[in-house]
Amino acid sequence: MTENKNLTYFPWQETKCKIHGRTDETQNPLPLFWNGSAVEVNVTGTELWIDLEVDFSVHEPWAGLSLNGAFISRQMLMAGRYKLCLFRNMNTDTIKNVRFFRELQAMSEDNANHLLVHGFYSDGSFSSVPDRTYKLEFVGDSITSGEGTYGAKKEEDWVPMFMSSSRNYAVMVSEALDADYRLLSQGGWGVFCSWDNKPYENLPSCYEKICGLLKGETNEKLGALKPYDFSSWQPDAVIINLGTNDASAFHQPAWHDPVTGESFKQHLLPNGSYDPSDLDRLKLAIIHFLALIRRNNSGAFIVWAYGMADYELTLPITEAISEYCRQSKDKKVSFLQLPATTDETVGSRCHPGPKAHERSAKILAEYLKSLLS
Amino acid sequence: MTENKNLTYFPWQETKCKIHGRTDETQNPLPLFWNGSAVEVNVTGTELWIDLEVDFSVHEPWAGLSLNGAFISRQMLMAGRYKLCLFRNMNTDTIKNVRFFRELQAMSEDNANHLLVHGFYSDGSFSSVPDRTYKLEFVGDSITSGEGTYGAKKEEDWVPMFMSSSRNYAVMVSEALDADYRLLSQGGWGVFCSWDNKPYENLPSCYEKICGLLKGETNEKLGALKPYDFSSWQPDAVIINLGTNDASAFHQPAWHDPVTGESFKQHLLPNGSYDPSDLDRLKLAIIHFLALIRRNNSGAFIVWAYGMADYELTLPITEAISEYCRQSKDKKVSFLQLPATTDETVGSRCHPGPKAHERSAKILAEYLKSLLS
Amino acid sequence: MTENKNLTYFPWQETKCKIHGRTDETQNPLPLFWNGSAVEVNVTGTELWIDLEVDFSVHEPWAGLSLNGAFISRQMLMAGRYKLCLFRNMNTDTIKNVRFFRELQAMSEDNANHLLVHGFYSDGSFSSVPDRTYKLEFVGDSITSGEGTYGAKKEEDWVPMFMSSSRNYAVMVSEALDADYRLLSQGGWGVFCSWDNKPYENLPSCYEKICGLLKGETNEKLGALKPYDFSSWQPDAVIINLGTNDASAFHQPAWHDPVTGESFKQHLLPNGSYDPSDLDRLKLAIIHFLALIRRNNSGAFIVWAYGMADYELTLPITEAISEYCRQSKDKKVSFLQLPATTDETVGSRCHPGPKAHERSAKILAEYLKSLLS
Amino acid sequence: MTENKNLTYFPWQETKCKIHGRTDETQNPLPLFWNGSAVEVNVTGTELWIDLEVDFSVHEPWAGLSLNGAFISRQMLMAGRYKLCLFRNMNTDTIKNVRFFRELQAMSEDNANHLLVHGFYSDGSFSSVPDRTYKLEFVGDSITSGEGTYGAKKEEDWVPMFMSSSRNYAVMVSEALDADYRLLSQGGWGVFCSWDNKPYENLPSCYEKICGLLKGETNEKLGALKPYDFSSWQPDAVIINLGTNDASAFHQPAWHDPVTGESFKQHLLPNGSYDPSDLDRLKLAIIHFLALIRRNNSGAFIVWAYGMADYELTLPITEAISEYCRQSKDKKVSFLQLPATTDETVGSRCHPGPKAHERSAKILAEYLKSLLS
Repeated sequence: MTENKNLTYFPWQETKCKIHGRTDETQNPLPLFWNGSAVEVNVTGTELWIDLEVDFSVHEPWAGLSLNGAFISRQMLMAGRYKLCLFRNMNTDTIKNVRFFRELQAMSEDNANHLLVHGFYSDGSFSSVPDRTYKLEFVGDSITSGEGTYGAKKEEDWVPMFMSSSRNYAVMVSEALDADYRLLSQGGWGVFCSWDNKPYENLPSCYEKICGLLKGETNEKLGALKPYDFSSWQPDAVIINLGTNDASAFHQPAWHDPVTGESFKQHLLPNGSYDPSDLDRLKLAIIHFLALIRRNNSGAFIVWAYGMADYELTLPITEAISEYCRQSKDKKVSFLQLPATTDETVGSRCHPGPKAHERSAKILAEYLKSLLS
Repeated sequence: MTENKNLTYFPWQETKCKIHGRTDETQNPLPLFWNGSAVEVNVTGTELWIDLEVDFSVHEPWAGLSLNGAFISRQMLMAGRYKLCLFRNMNTDTIKNVRFFRELQAMSEDNANHLLVHGFYSDGSFSSVPDRTYKLEFVGDSITSGEGTYGAKKEEDWVPMFMSSSRNYAVMVSEALDADYRLLSQGGWGVFCSWDNKPYENLPSCYEKICGLLKGETNEKLGALKPYDFSSWQPDAVIINLGTNDASAFHQPAWHDPVTGESFKQHLLPNGSYDPSDLDRLKLAIIHFLALIRRNNSGAFIVWAYGMADYELTLPITEAISEYCRQSKDKKVSFLQLPATTDETVGSRCHPGPKAHERSAKILAEYLKSLLS
Repeated sequence: MTENKNLTYFPWQETKCKIHGRTDETQNPLPLFWNGSAVEVNVTGTELWIDLEVDFSVHEPWAGLSLNGAFISRQMLMAGRYKLCLFRNMNTDTIKNVRFFRELQAMSEDNANHLLVHGFYSDGSFSSVPDRTYKLEFVGDSITSGEGTYGAKKEEDWVPMFMSSSRNYAVMVSEALDADYRLLSQGGWGVFCSWDNKPYENLPSCYEKICGLLKGETNEKLGALKPYDFSSWQPDAVIINLGTNDASAFHQPAWHDPVTGESFKQHLLPNGSYDPSDLDRLKLAIIHFLALIRRNNSGAFIVWAYGMADYELTLPITEAISEYCRQSKDKKVSFLQLPATTDETVGSRCHPGPKAHERSAKILAEYLKSLLS
Repeated sequence: MTENKNLTYFPWQETKCKIHGRTDETQNPLPLFWNGSAVEVNVTGTELWIDLEVDFSVHEPWAGLSLNGAFISRQMLMAGRYKLCLFRNMNTDTIKNVRFFRELQAMSEDNANHLLVHGFYSDGSFSSVPDRTYKLEFVGDSITSGEGTYGAKKEEDWVPMFMSSSRNYAVMVSEALDADYRLLSQGGWGVFCSWDNKPYENLPSCYEKICGLLKGETNEKLGALKPYDFSSWQPDAVIINLGTNDASAFHQPAWHDPVTGESFKQHLLPNGSYDPSDLDRLKLAIIHFLALIRRNNSGAFIVWAYGMADYELTLPITEAISEYCRQSKDKKVSFLQLPATTDETVGSRCHPGPKAHERSAKILAEYLKSLLS
């Protein structure tokens, strides 16, 4: 291997890089917390490396690379500080647009999981990356974490390699609309409680922090738990894809809090319908979340996009949205149903596969285009 | 032209024909009131003709033909009594499945419009036509009348040739599920009022009759206004595709009843939102219609399938469904959103085109399959 | 039915109509000999009828209608002189583009078969129809006659209803390129002999006449056997889709000429390969046909497009083309292979179905675009 | 990162791995010379690593990973000996099918380029990998090297990241037919000479060696230049996709051999057609190559599949095939034209993109299925 002797080291702050995804931009190294979080540079030169720091306890991060907008690479990241070559041996004069992105969701179950960017090595020079036409924020669960978008149908292991931002409806929608995007998602979590009735595992509880679902000292140091500065990036639309796990909770056993000894459950009545009071607290959670989003994003369209797994909560969700709109007089909130996954579109782990993401992305992009234009 | 001397005349009652679509089966000739209404025969022989009687004042009926399940022909029908050749010169021994179907919706605006079947001429013999696996009833507006499914994008004339059952989501869904189907639809009508605020132009008002939206003596004699015998054909699912015109009414001027002198209008508030009391009477109409359908179809799934034109009434419709379910404890009613028409899928007269019907049919068929299996 | 009292009769010559397909334009009524042959008018007014004269002995003609470029109608035509309504009740001011076209191939087996246009009835006025960007001539067999493009897979009857120009690759290609088109085709015929070894049933033998495969006094009177005036319509490309029946002949028994008592056959050797001398006369026929086409179309690209049924004659055809090019120094002749029909794309009568025509049309249109632009 | 203490090292010979692609199986470590070359294991356990040795001077190798048949990962490989984790943290009991494959073509221009497999680390046990239904060998140029299948349309750099086996028609065909496959390809090379008239850069010259286009001592030691043992793997079909560069040579300047001082060129005549004697030597090369392939693969179908870039050499290639067939009486050689790349299907570097590969793969797979079944 012939070494390139002309490489210079650039801390990320000196690369005019564009940062995608909520993070604490005062940090050094820069954490990529969420799936779809990325650093994007415009750079000349023949060669580019990224200087990373990675760790995890159980669940390793995965990252991907696109060049001039085209998917190039996707790989597992091992622990350690090391550099990865992003391109080499190219025409030195052309400006290459390079996006290095996190494939794996933020990992609430692995406090050691982090993917940090120190800087770049290059023999070229950096120029700034312009903003896209729109800004979109997506809040979701395993679907928005891209679970099921890689891997064979028969896969049943819950491992990072089957999650992605690269085959993800949220990213497809953003590409179709020429939008910058930020994803907040967590597999198993709901708008009110988790798939197995954990009342604390819901996205609203962490919505106002940078990456509030992370725990542990390291993540705290990395800024994950800091309040998120909404004024820094006001989205044109916030898309919520939640409800699938809240529906599941009704069918799962109670969860017993090992700390408090309390237990928690969303109940079904003997006739199989939802317990009205349990349903009410779910709807209240939806209403509160809408209010919370509106409080922080005064001008955004808010679209509750639901149905990629199944349609079970369509009526409770729409009812809560209607109630919220009536109370708040908010006229920029709507509901969009996405097509449920079928045998033909299912991916690994019984989750929506790439075809399901493509189909939903098309419908959602069409709808957002009609709102935004 | 060499004439076939072996043809025998068979009144329709002697052909073991299967009748599709609500009609008065005691009539002779047999009226085909609705689009998708049809006579279907299994017949041997080399040649088959149908003996028709057609009339209209302004809007001529159109009819289509399928042979062994494949689309063969579609044509305008002029007034008069005459016969049409459905096939000729075929292998005499094989059983041919022939469906002669009405393309044009029932025509509330043309009392003279009728398409009547007297019988068939054949040199073969008839055998019975088995039922399909499921029975589906569709209730809708111009979308279910297939308006826009034929004709160039630029067409603006409201004429029968642009309406169909042959490129219609309802028929596509039924084919996909191996279902017999009955369509009740009327362009411009709603669940509560018409697109231009006529309070009498709604499908619930005629739901319990054979074809209650028709008027005039002739139609009365043809049995259109008789009560429909729901026990004769209990569908596995009733699909309602209404709301598009109810939304339009809010944006249209008041309608003045020339008879009573009264006027009628669904209002917008000065801030552009729906007048709550007008919205309430729309929602009440939805609730009453669901109750009416349930009363007459005790075991059917009821699916409100909405959105092919736009999503404007999603929240009011879902709220009314929720309210109906709460009141009635009915657990077999659901809401399905269908993808809105785009530049890519639009047909003639700014209505959903064939691609829009195909896309919605796929989603609806997938959903019904999950309900029915 | 309310009659339109404002209709005026226009002989076809007074309608500025555009005539599609080879015909004898000095005739009155005007014969439509070939599938895809048509009269096209631009006309205002609320209503338009066509005045037809139709006859046949065994095989009835079928016709279709498009309005402003969109397919509207397709129907069997019975014998007699009568008028058909093409549109009615439309906005009187707009110019409607109307094309009435023959679906059925010229019928060498039914001398009585003809479809003649006398004129039109209209309450509007006619304006001329501009030429399209290109002119394309297609010469072929049952594939170019659209056999198999209508009807269920299981159909086995050789009847007109399963043939078409409306679902025909040649027409699809022409639409994609904005081209006027003329089709010459006959099911069962080859470039050298028919599928069953009839040596006279080949397209070259009738290429220089208007519709030289027709027989009988009536057709002669209609001008079918007159020399075709190539100077009147010089195509940008001639597409030949022949060979499928020539391949079949090798596998069929000899044909015995009932008149001369001679028999004729293309032979296979005992080892299953083609008899070289029989193959040579086939190749010679190809070479002569290319020379004949070139003689009459000096500037046209000539594309031998083959393979929609199977690929059996690929090498003999290409070899003959190479030989022709070598001899003639002709540099505008090429070979294009089209995808063979599969279970997925087959139509009725084991012929290419609509999906096969669409797939081949795409490849052929792409290729012609690269030649013509 | 929590280390897995249960990993055991397995030299590749002890893993029952299946080796894909021509290589010297007596080597240790095992070289993966060609794109699509791979090691495939069936293994239980929670975790699997591969022990690699990589080097290159200029052009780095890329590799990909599939798990249970699904694409998982693709990455650039840096020089050195190191291990890559292929999966981790999975259910220990299930058998995982893992294929680690080379994305980059054999690199005739970089003698240092090699990708060697030493072994695996696993906490599970290995079982054998069954053969697939068919065996296919593909011989080609940059198209078969997958050049253009990754990267944006605007890319112009000739670098490994834009080549692949993972988005390659040859692999798609093999998947569709359940076939094992071996690829031999080299960008810029032809059946007779290279795109720029180098007479030595042709695939036939290296067809009888394991990877005869490689040079240098290291490659020799790795066994690349050993005779290939055809008896070890007799394909059901050999697919040749060559000709694109031979066509280019006619339009490029002469190549001057720096060693011998001789120059070489395929000429055009002043009128723009091919010089007949130059064309003859090209055709002779085709004939000789077919004979060479037949000599080594007595039972295989040989399919010359050409056209993905353009159709320029269709007639010379088919003529040479016909001539070969006539001389040899070989009845299992055929020509298949693949659709040329269009604006819609082009990838990076003006080469066929993924859509072009998919379209051609479908046609080729359909054809091979008809041959093989």
